Amino acid sequence: MARILCAGLGPGDPDLISIRSDRAVRGATQVAYFRKAGRRGQARAIVEGMLRPDALELAMEYPVTTELPFDSPEYNDALARFYDDWAERLAALPGEVVVLCEGDPFFYGSFMHLYARLRGRVEIEVIPGITGMAGCWHATGTPITWGDDVLSVLMGTLPEADLVSHMRGADALAIMKTGRNLPKVRRALETAGRLDDAWLIERGTMPGQRVARLAEVDAEDCPYFAIVIVHGHGRRPEVHQ
Amino acid sequence: MARILCAGLGPGDPDLISIRSDRAVRGATQVAYFRKAGRRGQARAIVEGMLRPDALELAMEYPVTTELPFDSPEYNDALARFYDDWAERLAALPGEVVVLCEGDPFFYGSFMHLYARLRGRVEIEVIPGITGMAGCWHATGTPITWGDDVLSVLMGTLPEADLVSHMRGADALAIMKTGRNLPKVRRALETAGRLDDAWLIERGTMPGQRVARLAEVDAEDCPYFAIVIVHGHGRRPEVHQ
Ligand SMILES: C[S@@+](CC[C@H](N)C(=O)[O-])C[C@H]1O[C@@H](n2cnc3c(N)ncnc32)[C@H](O)[C@@H]1O
Ligand SMILES: C[S@@+](CC[C@H](N)C(=O)[O-])C[C@H]1O[C@@H](n2cnc3c(N)ncnc32)[C@H](O)[C@@H]1O
Repeated sequence: MARILCAGLGPGDPDLISIRSDRAVRGATQVAYFRKAGRRGQARAIVEGMLRPDALELAMEYPVTTELPFDSPEYNDALARFYDDWAERLAALPGEVVVLCEGDPFFYGSFMHLYARLRGRVEIEVIPGITGMAGCWHATGTPITWGDDVLSVLMGTLPEADLVSHMRGADALAIMKTGRNLPKVRRALETAGRLDDAWLIERGTMPGQRVARLAEVDAEDCPYFAIVIVHGHGRRPEVHQ
Repeated sequence: MARILCAGLGPGDPDLISIRSDRAVRGATQVAYFRKAGRRGQARAIVEGMLRPDALELAMEYPVTTELPFDSPEYNDALARFYDDWAERLAALPGEVVVLCEGDPFFYGSFMHLYARLRGRVEIEVIPGITGMAGCWHATGTPITWGDDVLSVLMGTLPEADLVSHMRGADALAIMKTGRNLPKVRRALETAGRLDDAWLIERGTMPGQRVARLAEVDAEDCPYFAIVIVHGHGRRPEVHQ
Protein backbone atom coordinates (compact mmCIF):
# COMPACT_ATOMS: atom_id res chain seq x y z
CA MET A 1 0.00 0.00 0.00
CA ALA A 2 1.11 3.56 -0.72
CA ARG A 3 2.44 5.68 2.07
CA ILE A 4 2.52 9.45 1.72
CA LEU A 5 4.89 11.54 3.76
CA CYS A 6 4.38 15.27 3.32
CA ALA A 7 7.49 17.21 4.32
CA GLY A 8 7.01 20.84 5.35
CA LEU A 9 10.16 22.61 4.17
CA GLY A 10 9.89 26.00 5.87
CA PRO A 11 10.16 29.44 4.28
CA GLY A 12 13.01 28.83 1.84
CA ASP A 13 16.40 28.61 3.53
CA PRO A 14 17.31 24.87 3.55
CA ASP A 15 18.90 25.37 6.98
CA LEU A 16 15.40 26.06 8.32
CA ILE A 17 14.10 22.62 7.36
CA SER A 18 13.36 20.44 10.40
CA ILE A 19 15.49 17.44 11.27
CA ARG A 20 12.57 15.15 10.42
CA SER A 21 11.82 16.70 7.02
CA ASP A 22 15.52 16.81 6.17
CA ARG A 23 15.77 13.09 6.86
CA ALA A 24 12.63 12.38 4.79
CA VAL A 25 13.87 14.40 1.82
CA ARG A 26 17.38 12.92 1.79
CA GLY A 27 16.09 9.37 2.08
CA ALA A 28 13.26 9.64 -0.47
CA THR A 29 13.19 7.33 -3.49
CA GLN A 30 10.03 9.02 -4.87
CA VAL A 31 9.32 12.74 -4.48
CA ALA A 32 6.39 14.81 -5.73
CA TYR A 33 5.93 18.59 -5.69
CA PHE A 34 3.56 21.22 -7.06
CA ARG A 35 4.74 23.82 -9.52
CA LYS A 36 3.50 26.20 -12.16
CA ALA A 37 3.94 24.79 -15.67
CA GLY A 38 7.34 25.72 -17.01
CA ARG A 39 8.77 26.73 -13.63
CA ARG A 40 11.21 24.90 -11.39
CA GLY A 41 8.85 25.08 -8.42
CA GLN A 42 9.69 26.66 -5.08
CA ALA A 43 9.48 23.45 -3.00
CA ARG A 44 11.82 21.69 -5.44
CA ALA A 45 14.21 24.65 -5.38
CA ILE A 46 14.52 24.47 -1.59
CA VAL A 47 15.77 20.87 -1.69
CA GLU A 48 18.23 21.40 -4.55
CA GLY A 49 21.28 19.21 -3.90
CA MET A 50 19.53 17.18 -1.20
CA LEU A 51 17.78 14.48 -3.25
CA ARG A 52 19.20 11.04 -3.96
CA PRO A 53 20.48 10.95 -7.55
CA ASP A 54 18.21 7.99 -8.28
CA ALA A 55 15.05 9.54 -6.78
CA LEU A 56 12.00 9.45 -9.04
CA GLU A 57 10.64 13.00 -9.38
CA LEU A 58 6.99 13.78 -10.04
CA ALA A 59 6.22 17.41 -10.88
CA MET A 60 2.53 18.14 -10.25
CA GLU A 61 1.92 21.08 -12.59
CA TYR A 62 -1.10 23.29 -11.87
CA PRO A 63 -3.47 23.24 -14.86
CA VAL A 64 -4.34 26.91 -14.32
CA THR A 65 -2.93 29.64 -12.16
CA THR A 66 -3.97 33.18 -13.00
CA GLU A 67 -5.54 32.69 -16.45
CA LEU A 68 -8.99 32.10 -14.94
CA PRO A 69 -10.58 34.07 -12.08
CA PHE A 70 -9.99 31.99 -8.95
CA ASP A 71 -13.66 32.14 -7.97
CA SER A 72 -15.03 30.93 -11.33
CA PRO A 73 -16.59 27.45 -11.70
CA GLU A 74 -14.08 26.66 -14.50
CA TYR A 75 -11.11 27.33 -12.23
CA ASN A 76 -12.65 25.30 -9.46
CA ASP A 77 -13.40 22.39 -11.83
CA ALA A 78 -9.97 22.32 -13.41
CA LEU A 79 -8.29 22.31 -10.01
CA ALA A 80 -10.62 19.69 -8.55
CA ARG A 81 -9.84 17.34 -11.45
CA PHE A 82 -6.13 18.05 -11.09
CA TYR A 83 -6.18 17.12 -7.38
CA ASP A 84 -8.38 14.08 -8.06
CA ASP A 85 -5.90 12.80 -10.67
CA TRP A 86 -2.79 13.33 -8.60
CA ALA A 87 -4.40 11.79 -5.52
CA GLU A 88 -5.00 8.64 -7.59
CA ARG A 89 -1.51 8.64 -9.06
CA LEU A 90 0.21 9.03 -5.71
CA ALA A 91 -2.01 6.37 -4.14
CA ALA A 92 -1.05 3.96 -6.93
CA LEU A 93 2.71 4.34 -6.42
CA PRO A 94 4.66 1.39 -5.03
CA GLY A 95 5.86 2.30 -1.53
CA GLU A 96 6.51 5.67 0.02
CA VAL A 97 6.37 9.01 -1.78
CA VAL A 98 7.59 12.22 -0.13
CA VAL A 99 5.51 15.27 -1.09
CA LEU A 100 7.52 18.48 -0.78
CA CYS A 101 5.68 21.55 0.54
CA GLU A 102 7.01 25.02 1.25
CA GLY A 103 6.23 26.43 4.67
CA ASP A 104 3.82 24.44 6.80
CA PRO A 105 1.66 22.02 4.76
CA PHE A 106 -1.46 22.54 6.91
CA PHE A 107 -1.30 26.33 6.64
CA TYR A 108 -2.90 27.31 3.29
CA GLY A 109 -0.90 24.57 1.56
CA SER A 110 -1.90 22.87 -1.72
CA PHE A 111 -1.08 19.51 -0.20
CA MET A 112 -4.24 19.77 1.91
CA HIS A 113 -6.30 19.09 -1.24
CA LEU A 114 -4.52 15.76 -1.71
CA TYR A 115 -4.83 15.08 2.00
CA ALA A 116 -8.62 15.66 1.91
CA ARG A 117 -8.87 13.11 -0.90
CA LEU A 118 -6.54 10.42 0.47
CA ARG A 119 -7.05 10.60 4.21
CA GLY A 120 -8.26 7.25 5.49
CA ARG A 121 -7.46 5.52 2.17
CA VAL A 122 -3.66 5.44 2.39
CA GLU A 123 -1.20 5.97 5.19
CA ILE A 124 -0.32 9.68 5.42
CA GLU A 125 2.10 11.49 7.70
CA VAL A 126 2.51 15.26 7.60
CA ILE A 127 5.59 16.99 9.00
CA PRO A 128 5.05 20.61 10.16
CA GLY A 129 7.30 23.37 8.85
CA ILE A 130 8.24 26.94 9.71
CA THR A 131 5.65 29.11 7.93
CA GLY A 132 6.59 31.61 5.24
CA MET A 133 5.22 34.42 7.42
CA ALA A 134 7.64 33.50 10.24
CA GLY A 135 10.52 33.63 7.75
CA CYS A 136 9.23 37.08 6.75
CA TRP A 137 8.89 38.55 10.23
CA HIS A 138 12.37 37.31 11.05
CA ALA A 139 13.61 39.01 7.87
CA THR A 140 12.43 42.34 9.32
CA GLY A 141 14.55 41.78 12.46
CA THR A 142 11.62 42.72 14.71
CA PRO A 143 9.35 40.50 16.83
CA ILE A 144 5.82 40.11 15.46
CA THR A 145 3.75 39.86 18.67
CA TRP A 146 4.09 40.78 22.36
CA GLY A 147 1.91 40.37 25.45
CA ASP A 148 -1.70 39.96 24.40
CA ASP A 149 -1.41 41.27 20.86
CA VAL A 150 -3.90 39.84 18.39
CA LEU A 151 -2.31 38.58 15.16
CA SER A 152 -4.55 38.25 12.13
CA VAL A 153 -3.47 36.40 9.01
CA LEU A 154 -5.22 37.74 5.92
CA MET A 155 -5.18 36.76 2.26
CA GLY A 156 -4.74 39.46 -0.36
CA THR A 157 -7.55 37.73 -2.28
CA LEU A 158 -10.16 38.98 0.25
CA PRO A 159 -12.50 41.82 -0.74
CA GLU A 160 -11.07 45.24 0.10
CA ALA A 161 -13.73 46.08 2.69
CA ASP A 162 -13.05 42.81 4.58
CA LEU A 163 -9.34 43.55 4.54
CA VAL A 164 -9.94 47.01 6.01
CA SER A 165 -12.09 45.77 8.87
CA HIS A 166 -9.66 43.01 9.83
CA MET A 167 -6.73 45.41 9.58
CA ARG A 168 -8.50 47.75 12.00
CA GLY A 169 -9.34 44.99 14.46
CA ALA A 170 -5.96 43.32 14.95
CA ASP A 171 -2.66 44.48 16.47
CA ALA A 172 -0.28 42.54 14.25
CA LEU A 173 -0.92 41.53 10.64
CA ALA A 174 0.48 39.05 8.15
CA ILE A 175 -1.02 39.46 4.67
CA MET A 176 -0.26 36.63 2.26
CA LYS A 177 -1.07 36.02 -1.41
CA THR A 178 -0.18 39.60 -2.13
CA GLY A 179 1.25 39.34 -5.70
CA ARG A 180 -1.10 41.20 -7.97
CA ASN A 181 -3.40 41.94 -5.03
CA LEU A 182 -0.78 44.30 -3.63
CA PRO A 183 -2.41 47.55 -4.86
CA LYS A 184 -5.66 46.52 -3.13
CA VAL A 185 -3.81 45.48 0.04
CA ARG A 186 -2.01 48.80 0.06
CA ARG A 187 -5.22 50.81 -0.34
CA ALA A 188 -6.84 48.81 2.46
CA LEU A 189 -3.88 49.45 4.79
CA GLU A 190 -4.08 53.15 3.98
CA THR A 191 -7.83 53.25 4.72
CA ALA A 192 -7.21 51.37 8.00
CA GLY A 193 -4.50 53.88 8.93
CA ARG A 194 -1.75 51.25 8.98
CA LEU A 195 0.21 51.77 5.79
CA ASP A 196 3.09 53.57 7.52
CA ASP A 197 3.73 50.55 9.78
CA ALA A 198 3.64 47.99 6.96
CA TRP A 199 6.62 46.10 5.56
CA LEU A 200 6.75 44.16 2.32
CA ILE A 201 8.96 41.07 2.42
CA GLU A 202 9.67 39.39 -0.88
CA ARG A 203 11.18 35.88 -0.92
CA GLY A 204 11.71 35.74 2.86
CA THR A 205 14.88 33.72 3.73
CA MET A 206 15.31 32.80 0.02
CA PRO A 207 17.99 34.03 -2.36
CA GLY A 208 16.89 37.49 -3.52
CA GLN A 209 15.13 38.34 -0.24
CA ARG A 210 13.98 41.96 -0.13
CA VAL A 211 12.59 43.89 2.84
CA ALA A 212 11.10 47.35 2.32
CA ARG A 213 8.57 49.72 3.80
CA LEU A 214 5.42 49.10 1.81
CA ALA A 215 4.77 52.84 1.49
CA GLU A 216 8.03 53.17 -0.45
CA VAL A 217 7.47 50.25 -2.82
CA ASP A 218 6.06 50.18 -6.35
CA ALA A 219 2.91 48.12 -5.73
CA GLU A 220 2.56 47.06 -9.35
CA ASP A 221 5.53 44.75 -9.34
CA CYS A 222 5.20 42.13 -6.61
CA PRO A 223 6.32 38.47 -6.85
CA TYR A 224 4.14 35.53 -5.72
CA PHE A 225 6.35 34.89 -2.68
CA ALA A 226 5.68 38.11 -0.84
CA ILE A 227 4.06 38.90 2.50
CA VAL A 228 3.06 42.17 4.12
CA ILE A 229 3.87 42.36 7.84
CA VAL A 230 2.64 44.86 10.44
CA HIS A 231 4.26 44.30 13.85
CA GLY A 232 2.37 44.36 17.13
CA HIS A 233 3.69 46.39 20.07
CA GLY A 234 1.89 44.79 23.02
CA ARG A 235 2.10 45.45 26.68
CA ARG A 236 5.65 44.81 27.82
CA PRO A 237 7.96 45.40 30.79
CA GLU A 238 9.70 48.73 30.28
CA VAL A 239 13.23 48.82 28.89
CA HIS A 240 15.41 50.67 31.40
CA GLN A 241 18.61 51.19 29.45
CA MET B 1 32.38 41.02 22.46
CA ALA B 2 29.41 38.85 23.34
CA ARG B 3 27.43 37.17 20.63
CA ILE B 4 23.92 35.96 21.28
CA LEU B 5 22.36 33.27 19.16
CA CYS B 6 18.73 32.60 19.98
CA ALA B 7 17.65 29.17 18.80
CA GLY B 8 13.94 28.64 18.14
CA LEU B 9 13.29 25.01 19.09
CA GLY B 10 9.79 24.43 17.73
CA PRO B 11 6.78 23.01 19.58
CA GLY B 12 8.47 20.28 21.60
CA ASP B 13 9.46 17.25 19.53
CA PRO B 14 13.27 17.49 19.08
CA ASP B 15 12.85 16.13 15.54
CA LEU B 16 11.02 19.37 14.67
CA ILE B 17 14.05 21.55 15.48
CA SER B 18 15.54 23.15 12.37
CA ILE B 19 18.91 22.10 11.00
CA ARG B 20 20.35 25.47 11.99
CA SER B 21 19.06 25.45 15.58
CA ASP B 22 20.11 21.82 15.98
CA ARG B 23 23.65 22.74 14.96
CA ALA B 24 23.67 25.76 17.30
CA VAL B 25 22.43 23.72 20.27
CA ARG B 26 24.83 20.82 19.77
CA GLY B 27 27.82 23.13 19.33
CA ALA B 28 27.06 25.51 22.21
CA THR B 29 29.58 25.99 25.01
CA GLN B 30 27.24 28.36 26.90
CA VAL B 31 23.46 27.99 26.91
CA ALA B 32 20.79 30.05 28.65
CA TYR B 33 17.06 29.38 29.01
CA PHE B 34 14.05 30.73 30.87
CA ARG B 35 12.20 28.62 33.38
CA LYS B 36 9.88 28.87 36.35
CA ALA B 37 11.77 28.57 39.63
CA GLY B 38 12.02 24.94 40.65
CA ARG B 39 11.04 23.59 37.22
CA ARG B 40 13.22 22.00 34.56
CA GLY B 41 12.06 24.44 31.92
CA GLN B 42 10.41 23.47 28.65
CA ALA B 43 13.15 24.78 26.34
CA ARG B 44 15.77 22.89 28.33
CA ALA B 45 13.65 19.75 28.25
CA ILE B 46 13.45 19.83 24.44
CA VAL B 47 17.24 19.67 24.07
CA GLU B 48 17.77 16.95 26.68
CA GLY B 49 20.65 14.75 25.49
CA MET B 50 21.78 17.25 22.84
CA LEU B 51 24.08 19.54 24.84
CA ARG B 52 27.84 19.13 25.09
CA PRO B 53 28.72 17.62 28.48
CA ASP B 54 30.98 20.62 29.22
CA ALA B 55 28.40 23.28 28.23
CA LEU B 56 27.88 26.02 30.82
CA GLU B 57 24.16 26.23 31.64
CA LEU B 58 22.45 29.42 32.76
CA ALA B 59 18.87 29.00 33.99
CA MET B 60 17.05 32.34 33.88
CA GLU B 61 14.36 31.85 36.52
CA TYR B 62 11.33 34.14 36.34
CA PRO B 63 11.03 36.14 39.57
CA VAL B 64 7.23 35.92 39.48
CA THR B 65 4.77 33.95 37.42
CA THR B 66 1.23 33.85 38.67
CA GLU B 67 1.63 35.18 42.23
CA LEU B 68 1.04 38.77 41.07
CA PRO B 69 -1.63 39.95 38.61
CA PHE B 70 0.15 40.29 35.25
CA ASP B 71 -1.15 43.82 34.74
CA SER B 72 0.01 45.19 38.12
CA PRO B 73 2.93 47.64 38.36
CA GLU B 74 4.72 45.26 40.75
CA TYR B 75 4.65 42.43 38.23
CA ASN B 76 5.83 44.74 35.50
CA ASP B 77 8.66 46.10 37.66
CA ALA B 78 9.90 42.73 38.81
CA LEU B 79 9.97 41.42 35.26
CA ALA B 80 11.62 44.54 33.87
CA ARG B 81 14.43 44.24 36.43
CA PHE B 82 14.77 40.53 35.69
CA TYR B 83 15.20 41.16 31.97
CA ASP B 84 17.56 44.11 32.64
CA ASP B 85 19.78 41.91 34.81
CA TRP B 86 19.91 38.99 32.44
CA ALA B 87 20.56 41.23 29.46
CA GLU B 88 23.64 42.56 31.31
CA ARG B 89 24.79 39.11 32.35
CA LEU B 90 24.52 37.63 28.88
CA ALA B 91 26.24 40.67 27.35
CA ALA B 92 29.14 40.24 29.79
CA LEU B 93 29.78 36.59 28.88
CA PRO B 94 32.97 35.73 27.03
CA GLY B 95 32.07 34.63 23.49
CA GLU B 96 28.85 33.13 22.18
CA VAL B 97 25.83 32.13 24.24
CA VAL B 98 22.94 30.16 22.75
CA VAL B 99 19.57 31.15 24.21
CA LEU B 100 17.05 28.31 23.94
CA CYS B 101 13.45 29.27 23.12
CA GLU B 102 10.47 27.04 22.57
CA GLY B 103 8.49 27.65 19.40
CA ASP B 104 9.43 30.72 17.39
CA PRO B 105 11.37 33.31 19.46
CA PHE B 106 9.72 36.32 17.74
CA PHE B 107 6.19 35.01 18.33
CA TYR B 108 5.20 35.96 21.91
CA GLY B 109 8.59 34.73 23.17
CA SER B 110 10.30 35.89 26.38
CA PHE B 111 13.56 36.25 24.48
CA MET B 112 12.16 39.36 22.79
CA HIS B 113 12.58 41.24 26.08
CA LEU B 114 16.31 40.49 26.05
CA TYR B 115 16.44 41.32 22.36
CA ALA B 116 14.82 44.73 22.93
CA ARG B 117 17.50 45.49 25.52
CA LEU B 118 20.57 44.19 23.67
CA ARG B 119 19.81 44.94 20.04
CA GLY B 120 22.51 47.21 18.64
CA ARG B 121 24.78 46.65 21.67
CA VAL B 122 25.90 43.09 21.01
CA GLU B 123 25.75 40.82 17.99
CA ILE B 124 22.45 38.91 17.98
CA GLU B 125 21.15 36.29 15.60
CA VAL B 126 17.70 34.76 15.96
CA ILE B 127 16.76 31.44 14.37
CA PRO B 128 13.04 30.98 13.60
CA GLY B 129 11.20 27.92 14.87
CA ILE B 130 7.97 26.05 14.22
CA THR B 131 5.38 27.70 16.47
CA GLY B 132 3.60 25.85 19.25
CA MET B 133 0.27 26.50 17.49
CA ALA B 134 1.51 24.71 14.33
CA GLY B 135 2.50 21.73 16.47
CA CYS B 136 -1.03 21.84 17.91
CA TRP B 137 -2.94 22.03 14.64
CA HIS B 138 -0.86 19.14 13.31
CA ALA B 139 -1.75 17.20 16.45
CA THR B 140 -5.43 17.46 15.45
CA GLY B 141 -4.66 15.88 12.07
CA THR B 142 -6.66 18.57 10.25
CA PRO B 143 -5.44 21.58 8.23
CA ILE B 144 -5.92 24.93 9.96
CA THR B 145 -6.65 27.26 7.01
CA TRP B 146 -7.86 26.98 3.41
CA GLY B 147 -8.45 29.46 0.58
CA ASP B 148 -8.96 32.93 1.98
CA ASP B 149 -9.72 31.93 5.56
CA VAL B 150 -8.77 34.52 8.18
CA LEU B 151 -6.74 33.10 11.07
CA SER B 152 -6.70 35.07 14.31
CA VAL B 153 -4.27 34.31 17.10
CA LEU B 154 -5.69 35.30 20.49
CA MET B 155 -4.30 35.23 24.02
CA GLY B 156 -6.44 33.79 26.81
CA THR B 157 -5.37 36.81 28.87
CA LEU B 158 -7.59 39.14 26.79
CA PRO B 159 -10.85 40.44 28.30
CA GLU B 160 -13.78 38.14 27.58
CA ALA B 161 -15.65 40.67 25.40
CA ASP B 162 -12.57 41.13 23.19
CA LEU B 163 -12.21 37.39 22.85
CA VAL B 164 -15.84 37.08 21.76
CA SER B 165 -15.63 39.73 19.08
CA HIS B 166 -12.41 38.31 17.61
CA MET B 167 -13.85 34.80 17.73
CA ARG B 168 -16.87 36.00 15.74
CA GLY B 169 -14.75 37.83 13.16
CA ALA B 170 -12.26 35.15 12.12
CA ASP B 171 -12.62 31.80 10.35
CA ALA B 172 -9.82 29.91 12.09
CA LEU B 173 -8.62 30.51 15.66
CA ALA B 174 -5.57 29.69 17.74
CA ILE B 175 -5.97 30.69 21.38
CA MET B 176 -2.79 30.60 23.44
CA LYS B 177 -2.00 31.23 27.11
CA THR B 178 -5.05 29.26 28.02
CA GLY B 179 -3.99 27.67 31.36
CA ARG B 180 -6.16 29.16 34.07
CA ASN B 181 -7.87 31.39 31.48
CA LEU B 182 -9.53 28.32 29.99
CA PRO B 183 -12.95 28.79 31.69
CA LYS B 184 -13.08 32.34 30.26
CA VAL B 185 -11.94 31.16 26.81
CA ARG B 186 -14.60 28.48 26.86
CA ARG B 187 -17.37 30.90 27.82
CA ALA B 188 -16.25 33.28 25.07
CA LEU B 189 -16.30 30.48 22.47
CA GLU B 190 -19.77 29.50 23.61
CA THR B 191 -21.03 33.10 23.34
CA ALA B 192 -19.46 33.36 19.87
CA GLY B 193 -21.19 30.11 18.84
CA ARG B 194 -17.91 28.28 18.24
CA LEU B 195 -17.47 25.99 21.21
CA ASP B 196 -18.55 22.88 19.31
CA ASP B 197 -15.78 23.34 16.75
CA ALA B 198 -13.03 23.94 19.31
CA TRP B 199 -10.22 21.53 20.18
CA LEU B 200 -7.94 21.71 23.20
CA ILE B 201 -4.40 20.54 22.57
CA GLU B 202 -2.20 20.07 25.62
CA ARG B 203 1.57 19.67 25.15
CA GLY B 204 1.41 19.52 21.34
CA THR B 205 4.13 17.19 19.94
CA MET B 206 5.56 16.74 23.48
CA PRO B 207 5.44 13.61 25.63
CA GLY B 208 1.98 13.54 27.22
CA GLN B 209 0.27 15.24 24.24
CA ARG B 210 -3.50 15.28 24.60
CA VAL B 211 -6.09 16.27 21.99
CA ALA B 212 -9.74 16.63 22.98
CA ARG B 213 -12.90 18.47 22.01
CA LEU B 214 -12.97 21.49 24.30
CA ALA B 215 -16.68 20.96 25.02
CA GLU B 216 -15.82 17.59 26.58
CA VAL B 217 -12.94 18.77 28.75
CA ASP B 218 -12.86 19.83 32.39
CA ALA B 219 -11.87 23.49 31.95
CA GLU B 220 -10.53 23.84 35.49
CA ASP B 221 -7.50 21.69 34.94
CA CYS B 222 -5.41 22.99 32.03
CA PRO B 223 -1.60 23.01 31.82
CA TYR B 224 0.47 26.04 30.71
CA PHE B 225 1.34 24.40 27.39
CA ALA B 226 -2.14 24.24 25.93
CA ILE B 227 -3.73 25.84 22.88
CA VAL B 228 -7.32 25.96 21.67
CA ILE B 229 -7.72 25.47 17.92
CA VAL B 230 -10.75 26.12 15.72
CA HIS B 231 -10.16 25.04 12.11
CA GLY B 232 -11.13 27.11 9.07
CA HIS B 233 -13.04 25.50 6.21
CA GLY B 234 -12.39 27.96 3.37
CA ARG B 235 -13.36 27.86 -0.24
CA ARG B 236 -11.89 24.77 -1.83
CA PRO B 237 -12.14 22.68 -4.99
CA GLU B 238 -14.74 19.98 -4.42
CA VAL B 239 -13.66 16.48 -3.42
CA HIS B 240 -15.07 14.07 -6.03
CA GLN B 241 -14.36 10.69 -4.44
C1 LIG C 1 -0.44 28.92 -0.94
S1 LIG C 1 0.33 29.91 0.30
C2 LIG C 1 1.38 28.69 1.05
C3 LIG C 1 1.79 29.03 2.46
C4 LIG C 1 2.76 28.04 3.06
N1 LIG C 1 2.13 26.72 3.24
C5 LIG C 1 3.30 28.57 4.39
O1 LIG C 1 3.23 27.87 5.41
O2 LIG C 1 3.84 29.68 4.39
C6 LIG C 1 1.45 30.88 -0.67
C7 LIG C 1 1.73 32.25 -0.08
O3 LIG C 1 2.63 32.12 0.99
C8 LIG C 1 3.42 33.29 1.10
N2 LIG C 1 4.82 32.86 1.30
C9 LIG C 1 5.22 31.62 1.64
N3 LIG C 1 6.55 31.57 1.85
C10 LIG C 1 7.02 32.83 1.64
C11 LIG C 1 8.31 33.41 1.74
N4 LIG C 1 9.39 32.69 2.07
N5 LIG C 1 8.44 34.73 1.46
C12 LIG C 1 7.35 35.46 1.12
N6 LIG C 1 6.10 34.95 1.03
C13 LIG C 1 5.93 33.65 1.29
C14 LIG C 1 3.15 34.15 -0.11
O4 LIG C 1 2.32 35.21 0.29
C15 LIG C 1 2.40 33.22 -1.04
O5 LIG C 1 1.46 33.91 -1.80
C1 LIG D 1 4.86 32.76 25.93
S1 LIG D 1 4.02 31.85 24.69
C2 LIG D 1 5.37 31.29 23.72
C3 LIG D 1 5.00 30.92 22.31
C4 LIG D 1 6.16 30.34 21.51
N1 LIG D 1 7.20 31.32 21.29
C5 LIG D 1 5.65 29.78 20.19
O1 LIG D 1 6.15 30.15 19.13
O2 LIG D 1 4.74 28.96 20.24
C6 LIG D 1 3.52 30.43 25.62
C7 LIG D 1 2.22 29.79 25.13
O3 LIG D 1 2.48 29.06 23.95
C8 LIG D 1 1.58 27.99 23.85
N2 LIG D 1 2.37 26.79 23.45
C9 LIG D 1 3.62 26.82 22.96
N3 LIG D 1 4.02 25.59 22.60
C10 LIG D 1 2.99 24.75 22.85
C11 LIG D 1 2.78 23.34 22.66
N4 LIG D 1 3.74 22.57 22.14
N5 LIG D 1 1.58 22.82 23.02
C12 LIG D 1 0.64 23.60 23.55
N6 LIG D 1 0.77 24.93 23.74
C13 LIG D 1 1.93 25.51 23.39
C14 LIG D 1 0.83 27.87 25.16
O4 LIG D 1 -0.48 28.39 24.94
C15 LIG D 1 1.61 28.77 26.06
O5 LIG D 1 0.76 29.41 27.00
